[in-house]
Amino acid sequence: MQFMSDNAAAVHPQVWAALLAADAPDAPYDGDALSARLDAAFAEVFGRPCWVLWVASGTAANCLALSTMVPPQAAAVCHRLAHIERDEGGAPGFFTHGAKLLLAEGDGAKLTPAGIAAVIDPIKRGVHWVQPAAVSITQATELGRVYTPAEVTEIGLMAQGRRLWLHMDGARFANAVAFLGCEPAAVSCNAGVHALSFGCIKNGGMSAEAIVFFDEGLAEIAGYRRKRAGHLQSKGRFLAAQILAMLEGKLWLENAMAANEAAAIVSHGAADRLLEPVEGNQLFLRMSTQERAKLREQGFAFYDQGADGARFVTAWDSQREHCQALAEAIAAL
Amino acid sequence: MQFMSDNAAAVHPQVWAALLAADAPDAPYDGDALSARLDAAFAEVFGRPCWVLWVASGTAANCLALSTMVPPQAAAVCHRLAHIERDEGGAPGFFTHGAKLLLAEGDGAKLTPAGIAAVIDPIKRGVHWVQPAAVSITQATELGRVYTPAEVTEIGLMAQGRRLWLHMDGARFANAVAFLGCEPAAVSCNAGVHALSFGCIKNGGMSAEAIVFFDEGLAEIAGYRRKRAGHLQSKGRFLAAQILAMLEGKLWLENAMAANEAAAIVSHGAADRLLEPVEGNQLFLRMSTQERAKLREQGFAFYDQGADGARFVTAWDSQREHCQALAEAIAAL
Amino acid sequence: MQFMSDNAAAVHPQVWAALLAADAPDAPYDGDALSARLDAAFAEVFGRPCWVLWVASGTAANCLALSTMVPPQAAAVCHRLAHIERDEGGAPGFFTHGAKLLLAEGDGAKLTPAGIAAVIDPIKRGVHWVQPAAVSITQATELGRVYTPAEVTEIGLMAQGRRLWLHMDGARFANAVAFLGCEPAAVSCNAGVHALSFGCIKNGGMSAEAIVFFDEGLAEIAGYRRKRAGHLQSKGRFLAAQILAMLEGKLWLENAMAANEAAAIVSHGAADRLLEPVEGNQLFLRMSTQERAKLREQGFAFYDQGADGARFVTAWDSQREHCQALAEAIAAL
Amino acid sequence: MQFMSDNAAAVHPQVWAALLAADAPDAPYDGDALSARLDAAFAEVFGRPCWVLWVASGTAANCLALSTMVPPQAAAVCHRLAHIERDEGGAPGFFTHGAKLLLAEGDGAKLTPAGIAAVIDPIKRGVHWVQPAAVSITQATELGRVYTPAEVTEIGLMAQGRRLWLHMDGARFANAVAFLGCEPAAVSCNAGVHALSFGCIKNGGMSAEAIVFFDEGLAEIAGYRRKRAGHLQSKGRFLAAQILAMLEGKLWLENAMAANEAAAIVSHGAADRLLEPVEGNQLFLRMSTQERAKLREQGFAFYDQGADGARFVTAWDSQREHCQALAEAIAAL
Repeated sequence: MQFMSDNAAAVHPQVWAALLAADAPDAPYDGDALSARLDAAFAEVFGRPCWVLWVASGTAANCLALSTMVPPQAAAVCHRLAHIERDEGGAPGFFTHGAKLLLAEGDGAKLTPAGIAAVIDPIKRGVHWVQPAAVSITQATELGRVYTPAEVTEIGLMAQGRRLWLHMDGARFANAVAFLGCEPAAVSCNAGVHALSFGCIKNGGMSAEAIVFFDEGLAEIAGYRRKRAGHLQSKGRFLAAQILAMLEGKLWLENAMAANEAAAIVSHGAADRLLEPVEGNQLFLRMSTQERAKLREQGFAFYDQGADGARFVTAWDSQREHCQALAEAIAAL
Repeated sequence: MQFMSDNAAAVHPQVWAALLAADAPDAPYDGDALSARLDAAFAEVFGRPCWVLWVASGTAANCLALSTMVPPQAAAVCHRLAHIERDEGGAPGFFTHGAKLLLAEGDGAKLTPAGIAAVIDPIKRGVHWVQPAAVSITQATELGRVYTPAEVTEIGLMAQGRRLWLHMDGARFANAVAFLGCEPAAVSCNAGVHALSFGCIKNGGMSAEAIVFFDEGLAEIAGYRRKRAGHLQSKGRFLAAQILAMLEGKLWLENAMAANEAAAIVSHGAADRLLEPVEGNQLFLRMSTQERAKLREQGFAFYDQGADGARFVTAWDSQREHCQALAEAIAAL
Repeated sequence: MQFMSDNAAAVHPQVWAALLAADAPDAPYDGDALSARLDAAFAEVFGRPCWVLWVASGTAANCLALSTMVPPQAAAVCHRLAHIERDEGGAPGFFTHGAKLLLAEGDGAKLTPAGIAAVIDPIKRGVHWVQPAAVSITQATELGRVYTPAEVTEIGLMAQGRRLWLHMDGARFANAVAFLGCEPAAVSCNAGVHALSFGCIKNGGMSAEAIVFFDEGLAEIAGYRRKRAGHLQSKGRFLAAQILAMLEGKLWLENAMAANEAAAIVSHGAADRLLEPVEGNQLFLRMSTQERAKLREQGFAFYDQGADGARFVTAWDSQREHCQALAEAIAAL
Repeated sequence: MQFMSDNAAAVHPQVWAALLAADAPDAPYDGDALSARLDAAFAEVFGRPCWVLWVASGTAANCLALSTMVPPQAAAVCHRLAHIERDEGGAPGFFTHGAKLLLAEGDGAKLTPAGIAAVIDPIKRGVHWVQPAAVSITQATELGRVYTPAEVTEIGLMAQGRRLWLHMDGARFANAVAFLGCEPAAVSCNAGVHALSFGCIKNGGMSAEAIVFFDEGLAEIAGYRRKRAGHLQSKGRFLAAQILAMLEGKLWLENAMAANEAAAIVSHGAADRLLEPVEGNQLFLRMSTQERAKLREQGFAFYDQGADGARFVTAWDSQREHCQALAEAIAAL
């Protein structure tokens, strides 16, 4: 019973259908009819013009977006636990040509204006010190927490005031929106976000993420840099197809809701162990080495979280019985 | 009737079957069972140990391979018409951190030891001049020509003598091997090639190319750099599946043979127009503007080649009737 | 008798005097009183606002300037013989993070609008092809030729029309202006140049070149990038001092005139051997191997220029007798 | 009375003499007779073969050295307060093409094996996480503290065991050796250091630092990268001259001793205010805003150190009376 990562989830049948349907000859790269529909499809989701590029990984989405915002001699602020800082093999340094990541603190891996200010206010003006050019936040965060529209807006206003770009790593954006029940725009473009890495792969996709730009100039640069990074696939229609399938009939929200509900089921057995509130499809639980061993003996797969914790992640295809079984097993520890 | 690019070809049914079969949960990234089989599968093809990484584009394959061979302060020699020089949006500069491409000449877009020497011999030793570290050749070339085993071996020996790495862009390696009827090793590892971009996408694949390293040290570096470039996809099993399907029962050779045969059919009507001998699945024909217009009126799609030429590319799924019709239409011009 | 390079010339006494005078404590980096005077000093030379940075080498000057103009995914056009292409150890690739140099042709190593167009007009729009962002010309050129105000203006207008930045490598700008007898602005800012590498080291300086920006935005970026490249020296007053000494009483023009006159003396003995007209302080002469050997036996030091030529360079401190002797020795060959 | 920075100190008369003596024609770049003497001169200082390059700034020295040790996809460990992390405008990211700096803790800005281990031990093997390739320590540290031979040796052994290169930022190496009274080798090459940035500029030089490599392979790479970074000055003899003058008659140690003694004089009046022991030429004192204002009124110039502290730096040319006056003024606060 698999609770290691939503990366391991299956591809959704509607995505498969879209992939198979895309197997007709069309113009290569992003010159095909499906890729051409992406801007409009996202414009409908966000209620405003969007410029959208597909790429094959969240790392590529995040780092390409950042590379349009942060010149080599500048820096981006992110949380100390951000995926771009901890888990992307130095990709931000590659894509930005050596720009810095400035690490801020904040509960639940969430940034706040105060946390950002604590990092950038001490930076003196002048060429000796790397100046910030952007902020990157993760929605939902690496600890499963969700920014409210008000919280993103606060950061957005601060970024605007300091002339910083705002990027959102939305590998689990769908789970966050499903949890909030708000308009997608309310926690992104309307709140000051300039580029959103819109995750599909963890949410039923196979190999496509979308970078949704709310700024045309950034998107144009990104087009050149995507090619230069080897991310302009020649049969791009298969990436566009996946993303369009996710948007069709709001599949992205449905899948996220299913994953969130699966997490909620698990959390019923673990209320007294929660290291963080469950706001999406990730659970972080206090759990001793022996307890973890016991669960694994029963066939549950999951990651350790530090010395005394465990991380469980559900996905759109998590089976209710597995979740129920896990909840009971935890309760019985 | 489509003769623009083999990039536009359909995905082969066996590749689809492999993709669908791969849709069971497995470890993410390249920790899955399919990815684990790649080294052995290619070892069988090449008769010696191989270290293999999947990536999503030929550009990524070529440039990742080069980045393991060419330090930023050095250079790679390639043909003036090489894809890495002309059509990859500056990707070699990105992946190698600014190394140079030194452009050599040669008939049919083929390099020769003499052509390489003409470029590197005048380079004085010393820090003022960028020193060569690698040679990159394309098999089959950008003009549809094929290196024989003897020709690659000559280059391989020269590279060895000069302590240069040798990379082969094999986006159409299958077509070349099918044309030559030789062992794959005879025009690659046995001839001195250290890394081969083994193309699948133009040959019936969807979104996976293989970088086949014949040197373990290069492969280890490439692993880190693939992640850093955002090319380590989280559901990597779908890339491995495609590549394994291509190798299964030598599908890669079968598809290439079909494409080559399709080109041969077309060439029957164009013998007096050939700008280059047809050695694979590409035809370069002398053809005036009016003649091209006439063909296009009849429904044939293809690219111009300079002012007085045209390029036609066949693929594994080119229909015999279309090829026959094209041959006749050209003959009738 | 030294005719190898103006790099080997002595430091002018007025520069020494300025260096010694600068040895009073002052603020470090470029916060000192001398550095603060640079903008105004050049504004007087060029008759308009300038933003000036000192650096320690022509390579740094050229490449820092280019790095503010050419994003990593773009290209600069230069002559095939340009110093940035041939003699800077790949520095442009380093400073621009892998941007390309597009090589144009032109007599005397001079670019023309037609030569530039021949390189950039065939570049298709779109992300597959590296797009030009700047043009770099050398005044005087690597073959000792000088652009007239009209010639620079033609290039400047073309650059403006194509939205390209225009950089001038002026390692021997002084010699060119001395030859032309024009206002410095007439072959730089007034002709469309946005940044000028203003050479001092070959002209009596020790270790300082000036980058003169005619665009404030470029200069601001250059400030950050100079620090990042380790070129913001802590005792910057010694670089500013040298440059101010060069401008004081037009020493830069005097020195260049002296060097040009020395070259003219040499040319009197070599009129029938000139490979290029002598327009500054460099002579390129037809000369056989045996003839070169004969001159060297007589104590003249100089570089070969290809198989059948020789390059002689004079400097501000070339001795008249040496030049006269060389002229006679050549005439006697 | 100047106590802001040893950067502001004058150039020593023996350095001036060497500069003036170097003003005879010689081969350009580092082909001159003075540059050729550097390796041997340092071999004498360190009692073993050395490969030495001059550069014009400490930033260039540190970052060039690191760039030979740390591939773009890897990391260097340094102290959170290290100059390369805090004060070099992102230069390490530029020279290493985006490698990471991993920040460790340690009293007095000194690293320890335990502090290094705390940073690198949690890094999992594998491509998702940036792997360490080098350690960089500063001697004396940014808080004026000095590593003993035993302390460097401990770090050297750890680095060896982990296959990490060891770099030493020795902007104030002379002050450290003068304080320790040991052989220079005992805190560098004999203790496991592979490359040392040997500072001259703060110690009576004008514009030259030496990178002393104890590994020939690293030095060879550095030669190419120095050129590529625009740091191979054409009149390099003037840099070599400064460095040789510093070594001549152990001027480097004499100057450092003078600076250290000056700091000792100041410390006599400040024993109860020391934030760090005085081990070289820097003093970090507890001091309120009002107290600092009072000192400044009396003509003392220095930097604040946080909200309640002050930094005073002496140099080889600090005047005894000024130091005495400062000591008394502090005591009288």
